[in-house]
This record gives sequence, C-alpha cells and structure tokens, in this order.
Amino acid sequence: MSKPLFEKIALVGIGLIGSSLARVISRERLGGHIAITTRSAETLKRAEDLKLGDDYTAEAKEAVRGAGLVIVSVPVGASGAVVEEIAPVLKKGAILTDVGSTKASVIAQMQRFVPEGVHFIPGHPLTGTEMSGPDAGFAELFENRWCILTPLEGTDPAALEKLCQFWRRCGSSIDTMDPQHHDMTLAIVSHLPHIIAYNIVGMADDLEAVTKCEIVKYSASGFRDFTRLAGSDPTMWPDVCLHNREAILEMLARFSEDLASLQRAIRWGEGDKLFDLFTRTRAIRRSMGQEPGIQPSSGALTAVQGPTRLP
Amino acid sequence: MSKPLFEKIALVGIGLIGSSLARVISRERLGGHIAITTRSAETLKRAEDLKLGDDYTAEAKEAVRGAGLVIVSVPVGASGAVVEEIAPVLKKGAILTDVGSTKASVIAQMQRFVPEGVHFIPGHPLTGTEMSGPDAGFAELFENRWCILTPLEGTDPAALEKLCQFWRRCGSSIDTMDPQHHDMTLAIVSHLPHIIAYNIVGMADDLEAVTKCEIVKYSASGFRDFTRLAGSDPTMWPDVCLHNREAILEMLARFSEDLASLQRAIRWGEGDKLFDLFTRTRAIRRSMGQEPGIQPSSGALTAVQGPTRLP
Repeated sequence: MSKPLFEKIALVGIGLIGSSLARVISRERLGGHIAITTRSAETLKRAEDLKLGDDYTAEAKEAVRGAGLVIVSVPVGASGAVVEEIAPVLKKGAILTDVGSTKASVIAQMQRFVPEGVHFIPGHPLTGTEMSGPDAGFAELFENRWCILTPLEGTDPAALEKLCQFWRRCGSSIDTMDPQHHDMTLAIVSHLPHIIAYNIVGMADDLEAVTKCEIVKYSASGFRDFTRLAGSDPTMWPDVCLHNREAILEMLARFSEDLASLQRAIRWGEGDKLFDLFTRTRAIRRSMGQEPGIQPSSGALTAVQGPTRLP
Repeated sequence: MSKPLFEKIALVGIGLIGSSLARVISRERLGGHIAITTRSAETLKRAEDLKLGDDYTAEAKEAVRGAGLVIVSVPVGASGAVVEEIAPVLKKGAILTDVGSTKASVIAQMQRFVPEGVHFIPGHPLTGTEMSGPDAGFAELFENRWCILTPLEGTDPAALEKLCQFWRRCGSSIDTMDPQHHDMTLAIVSHLPHIIAYNIVGMADDLEAVTKCEIVKYSASGFRDFTRLAGSDPTMWPDVCLHNREAILEMLARFSEDLASLQRAIRWGEGDKLFDLFTRTRAIRRSMGQEPGIQPSSGALTAVQGPTRLP
C-alpha cells in the first residue's frame, strides 16, 4: 500500500465537513492516523460509534500533537479560541488550515496565535447541503466542488502544494484568491442568497391570510426553490452573518435599493421596466448553462467539471 | 375507440401551456378536433410545423366556433381583449376557461364579455418551468401538479365536473378556492419568489467587485437556487406583477420589513435573533418533506401525489 499523504491528520470539529473529511481521508488513505476532537461529548461519542477516526478526545491539544495536517472545522466564531488552545503543541512544519465560510475574520482570529514554523493556509471548500452533524457527512461531499484557498503573504510553496494535493484527492478543484475578495464573492454567491431565503421562509411562516399547509402544498410554484437554503444549519449561519458583516451589509443595501425600485415599478405599472429586468436575468440564467466550472448540486444544470487552477 | 371528452377544443394562445395542452389532449384523446389560434404568424406556423392541432388560424373567432371547450392561454393582460373578440361566436353550453397566474384581474377582464349560456370557469394549472413557446411544451407538464379552479357563484356543477375531469386526465389534482384567496396564495408561493429571484440575479449582474464569471463559477453555494426562477418568461411576468399588484405589494412590504429587521440584527451583532429565525425556517423546510401534496419540480424532495379534492 502506498504511503499516506500525511502520517497523522487532526480534525478539530466533527460536524458535516469534519466528518466528511474523516470519511474521504480514510477512503483515499490521505492520513495514516486520524485524530478527532470536539468539545461536545455527545458528538465525540457519535464520531466514535461511527468509527470515523483512530482516536477521540475532548482535548484538542491531545488530538493535534504530532499531526502534519490540522483541519479546524468549527463555526467561524470559534476558530480563534481553538488555535489559541492548540498553538503550543502544534508540530513544527505542520499545515494548519480551516474550512470556514468567511476568511478575513478567521484570519484575524487565528493568525496571531500561529507559532513560527507552522504553515497556516486558510481554506474554504464550497459545499452545499442543508444537513449538519457527524451523521450527515459523506466521503463524496467535496467531489466536483471548488475549494478556495486564501494563502497569506510568504506562504511556503511546498506546504501550499501539499494542501492542494490533499483537496484534489478529496475530489475538489482549487482556486486561490485574497481573503477580502473571497468574502465579497461569497457574500453574493452564498451569504445573501441564504439570508434572503431565511427571510422569505420566515415571513411566509408568519402570514395569517395563507396557511402553512397551503404554502407547502403549492410550493412547487417557486417558493420551494428557497427552502433548501432556509433549511441550512442554524448554528453555523448566524456566525457567518456576523463574521462577514461588512460585505453582507453592502450586498443587502444594494439588494434593498433594487427591490424598492422594482416595487415602485410594480406600483406605478411600469411594465417596460419589469420586462427589461426580467429579460436581462434570463440571459444570465442561460449563460450559466454554457460557462465552464459549474458544479451542480441538483439535476437542474449539466455537470461540467471546472478546470483545476493551480496557485 | 372511446368518444373524446370534447368534440372540439379551441386553444387560444399556443405558448408553453397551450402547446403542452395540445400535446396531452392528443395523447389522451380529450378532444376530437383541436383548433389552434394565436396572433403571432410565426408562432402559428411553428405550431403547424409541430403538428400540434387539426387547424390553425390567426382569427380567434374561427378557432372557437363550435368548440365545447375553449382554453385561453395568453398573458393575463390580454385575456379581456380575447374574450371580447370571441364572445359573439361562443357556442351555447361551451366551457370557457383560462390558465392565468392571477384570477381576480382575469375575471374582471373576461366575465363581462361572457355570453349567457357559456360556462366561464377560471383556472390556473400550477406548473413550473422556465421555458416558453410552442417548442417548449410537453404532454407531461401537468402531471402530478395542482390545478386551481376558482368557479364563480352559480357555476353549473356539471360543467365544473367536466372541466375537473379534463384536468384530471391531464394528470393534475384539483383544488377550488375563491379568486382573492388564490391571488394572495400565489403572491407568496410564486410571485414574490420570482420577483426576489429576478432582483437578486439582476443585482449580481450589476456588481463591479465580483465578476459574472465568478458568480457563475461559485453559484452552487446558494446563488444558483435563484436562477431557475429568474430565467422565467420575461413576457409573462411583468403582466403577472401588474395584474396581482395589491397582493404582491403587500407581500413585498412584509418581506422588506422583515429584511430590514434581519439587516439590523446583523449590523448590531444580534446572533441570538438570527439563530431563532434560522431555527424556525429549518423546521418549515423539514415539515415540507412530510406533508402530502408536495409535487416536486426537482429531485430535491420526494414525490408525493396530493390527494385529488373534488369541488
């Protein structure tokens, strides 16, 4: 059997992402030893029952000791505290990465604790599922998905290449960009859509004139398209909103401005304005079918594997 | 071969809905003769090339003469003019129906022209596809879908039952409700989601900080869920917005109010408020999996055929 990519990998946090990583690491033999740590005794027990790793501990320090790769998969608001805790025992030459949906905030929290000689390379695998917890994970979660890395200045090229290799073997394509651009991009492609979806589903739930049963019954008429996002992990998303606040507030302001203008066009019967907007958005939808790099989460679009761009 | 349900059916308008009706009428032998009429010479020619019916004319009067069932499938804003035109030649005892996405406005436009002895029963098959035109239609469009009928006071029960039979043989389940309730219900399950989707996709298109290519590339992170709706027919939707204006403006006002409150919670770091909302919406999403009557448009949910409720 060939040598694993890392002798030991530590997974800090074992939710949807962490447990999917555990599964793909085993399947692809990316780590000779998988150490799992999480603060929740219940989740840790569940991870052990599911046989996701080789050892299990509530002590993050124990798990990361001697690991060549440490992957922090905790809500973004908790990433600073985790690194503060594990920093003293991180192995020299280890790669420390994360999977958080926001990058500037995570870097601000983590970077100051990272010891000399440890390669801190922030990352974000773009996966989309509404499930959460160690039972929800699966080894294929990262297949045909983008993983965005936001390496800091002066990052060791060999460490970066090794982390790219890890993600490629998980099935992902890799892009690199700076953290600010990541956060702005994700605000529009992911955070705003989730917030809008949460908002419309919450609002519908409050209606008196139309019953919940009717909304569910007729949801194929459009409403249902929003409910997948509105079913996302309620523990993770408040954190994402607060940790990418500036970019999200900017997107929300633009969205509301445009919506007010659309609302005015409806009130004043400006059909031409509506037609112009609706024609333009249709063109965008159609362009999506042709662009390379679209990785479908449903059957709605044709699968096209995006080109892997090496950093 | 058994007798068709109607000797002659006239289809006024031959877009997605009209052409799908033509196909299912042929397949199920619901009409012995299918007359097709549309104002656009090009569309009429296309319908003929596709062999969708038995005769083709730009003169609506010619098409509806002698028909036992007349189905008006034109943009909702055009429904009054159509009925004004065909009223003089409608056969006594004929059923006149429509497929418009709004009901109060369509009734206000059509009812005053309907001659004595003609059964006007407004209808709305809830189908969801972003395609339009006679080429886009298919016989299965109505299968496992709801068709809502909004019969007026004093509607002949036999005529209503015959129209129900027609829609059931197209594969649909039938619900009846009053037109105002239809319009309020559709405003939340269909019209608001489309408007929101149009708005977010249009807004994304205007961004300077993130390129269109990036939005397309990373759209699986949430954005893509909106693009199907934003790709809907740009001719039909301005009409829907303007013809269900009151209900839509009410829903938009509520939506914006809630969004402003959510935005404020993000600005002021109120994670608990976000958590409460996100938890509530997740519960709604989960309830959707268990309710009867959900008719999926994608593979995201399990198909459950709703019970057919007779009026």
